[in-house]
Amino acid sequence: MKYGRSYNFSAGPAMMPEEVLEEIAAEMMNYHGSGMCVMEMSHRSPVFQEIRDRAEADLRKLMDIPDNYKVLFVQGGGTTQFAMVPMNLMKNGVACYIETGAWSKKAINEAKKYGEVQIVASSADKNFTYVPDCSQLDIPDNADYVYICENETIHGTTYHQLPDTKGKVLVADQSSMFLSRPCKVSDYCLIWAGVQKNVGPAGMAVVIIREDLLREDLPQFVPTYLNYKTHADADSLYNTPNCWSIYCCGKVFQYLLKHGGLEAQAQRNQEKAAVLYDYLDKSHLFTAAVAPQDRSLMNVPFVTPSKEQDAAVVEAAKAAGFDNLKGHKSVGGLRASIYNAMPKEGVEALVDFLRKYENAHC
Amino acid sequence: MKYGRSYNFSAGPAMMPEEVLEEIAAEMMNYHGSGMCVMEMSHRSPVFQEIRDRAEADLRKLMDIPDNYKVLFVQGGGTTQFAMVPMNLMKNGVACYIETGAWSKKAINEAKKYGEVQIVASSADKNFTYVPDCSQLDIPDNADYVYICENETIHGTTYHQLPDTKGKVLVADQSSMFLSRPCKVSDYCLIWAGVQKNVGPAGMAVVIIREDLLREDLPQFVPTYLNYKTHADADSLYNTPNCWSIYCCGKVFQYLLKHGGLEAQAQRNQEKAAVLYDYLDKSHLFTAAVAPQDRSLMNVPFVTPSKEQDAAVVEAAKAAGFDNLKGHKSVGGLRASIYNAMPKEGVEALVDFLRKYENAHC
Repeated sequence: MKYGRSYNFSAGPAMMPEEVLEEIAAEMMNYHGSGMCVMEMSHRSPVFQEIRDRAEADLRKLMDIPDNYKVLFVQGGGTTQFAMVPMNLMKNGVACYIETGAWSKKAINEAKKYGEVQIVASSADKNFTYVPDCSQLDIPDNADYVYICENETIHGTTYHQLPDTKGKVLVADQSSMFLSRPCKVSDYCLIWAGVQKNVGPAGMAVVIIREDLLREDLPQFVPTYLNYKTHADADSLYNTPNCWSIYCCGKVFQYLLKHGGLEAQAQRNQEKAAVLYDYLDKSHLFTAAVAPQDRSLMNVPFVTPSKEQDAAVVEAAKAAGFDNLKGHKSVGGLRASIYNAMPKEGVEALVDFLRKYENAHC
Repeated sequence: MKYGRSYNFSAGPAMMPEEVLEEIAAEMMNYHGSGMCVMEMSHRSPVFQEIRDRAEADLRKLMDIPDNYKVLFVQGGGTTQFAMVPMNLMKNGVACYIETGAWSKKAINEAKKYGEVQIVASSADKNFTYVPDCSQLDIPDNADYVYICENETIHGTTYHQLPDTKGKVLVADQSSMFLSRPCKVSDYCLIWAGVQKNVGPAGMAVVIIREDLLREDLPQFVPTYLNYKTHADADSLYNTPNCWSIYCCGKVFQYLLKHGGLEAQAQRNQEKAAVLYDYLDKSHLFTAAVAPQDRSLMNVPFVTPSKEQDAAVVEAAKAAGFDNLKGHKSVGGLRASIYNAMPKEGVEALVDFLRKYENAHC
């Protein structure tokens, strides 16, 4: 790759488009004649306001976000969202969660601080290698919402059909699949995504929330920063936001629009993932961990027959310039995260490497 | 200035050292042969771990932080710290606050959610243009801590002597004076600072907390992210931090060490501020707003005899290349924020401009 860059299969933070990084570098010393770097700008200045407004407008265009949804840029990552969701949405104190892996479990544990959590479906029985059937969920009448992690980064599963929530509102953590394919926003009441996987620099989550869910009457213990309404009322400028992340994410939104929007990106992602899954399914050394119908196009976990061989492949891959292929410590094996910014050539080069490794070692 | 950069007097985000920005731009496409930009690095990778560890080590060196204090990098800005401080430190449910302006008032309002707040000194009687005498405070025996905003960004005051807390622990918001002068960390139990004023890109606060204040037994409603212990136990890597801000702030820490540390920086800041205050005190048009003994070296508010003239000066200054001189909307007038990275030449050029304006209009 140009500049001696490597194919980086990190689960996040992860690759960004090269032309976006080039633009950012070129604008470092003096952004568009403003006399300063974006990092130096008052968040209340017209020049930054324009950057923020364009980022929101471009995201709305990309996802076709309806007018009755607010777009928020919030600090604190997924861990903060795990608390903000129940703090803001629990009225009856009951919520339904679907347990599909590490990230939905974290959300469940945090939500338990704020009310009763009912796990209405789970794939724990098979170590989270599939997405459970969510067509006949037992959802109580007083449930405040149904929560899913739409793509489990560690376990490599994705919903290919949204749960039937029986009329209850749906909340989705889209962190590791955000902007990877078209998404009908009106199917959800709240979508949130840490940007550090599929968009830009860590330290910010995008929250897309239906306006009628914003509330004045939260319990007193809810910090001002953790009330979605605080951010909605101030266009995410209640306090100084992560301006740099807004700027860089805005560049990525522009990049996606320029390259055909989410339909075209989904097409590219399908082609990329097919290269890897097709190889894994034919391999005699490697096995894809997830049931075919529930496979993520973003995070691809796979294993060899032994832990020792897993480690040997990771080591050899690193030496060959393929970074961050080690699976998460909780599941082991290998994992290739192939987010939007991973070029098809990167996946092809990885498959080429794996094939050669297999031929040499089997 | 080089690159057509302007003298930017913003109260924050604010100027960064030019050579730091140059380094960051040069490392954008491939950081130190890692094959990636810092924005693309896994926060768990050895290359990022080294960046994080060096940033902490350099900050410890700069401030001579004792071993029994933890250094944390936390998202969510001051607004989140306003909640985290009482959530984590209130055991008896009583805290003493000193009210010196907009930012201590915000801290007070948030703390009231979590317990009883006693305002033990205030400068509200003179519109916060001085720091009250804090040598004889009436602090109850059961107070959990005493809280100050050590430099009020909007009102332009600074403590030149810390309060006598009668043995209670002291918490300080140092956001707008962080690293502007040497600081004896052991005088405090907790120092926090949003980095976007005197260090680097917005979206992170540095928290320096004495270890014995970290607690397991917080109330259940405290979100995992808002427990200082979460961050302390994980070296600020419990979840993905604002990696970019850690990297850029680390560069600024290195820059300060290279240029003589905090003693030398304090000297430069005193010289810079003297240029402006000396002029204002002799001017027939402009008046510095704050009592001489309590003046901030970082934020310098001043006024003309009328609002119309204030606005006219701001306008003329902007046209002459001096940005962000408008005072905060809550106090009006003008304000020059002259943080660490503002060169002395910038202040001299501003004074030159103000002098010419005065000569032409008086």
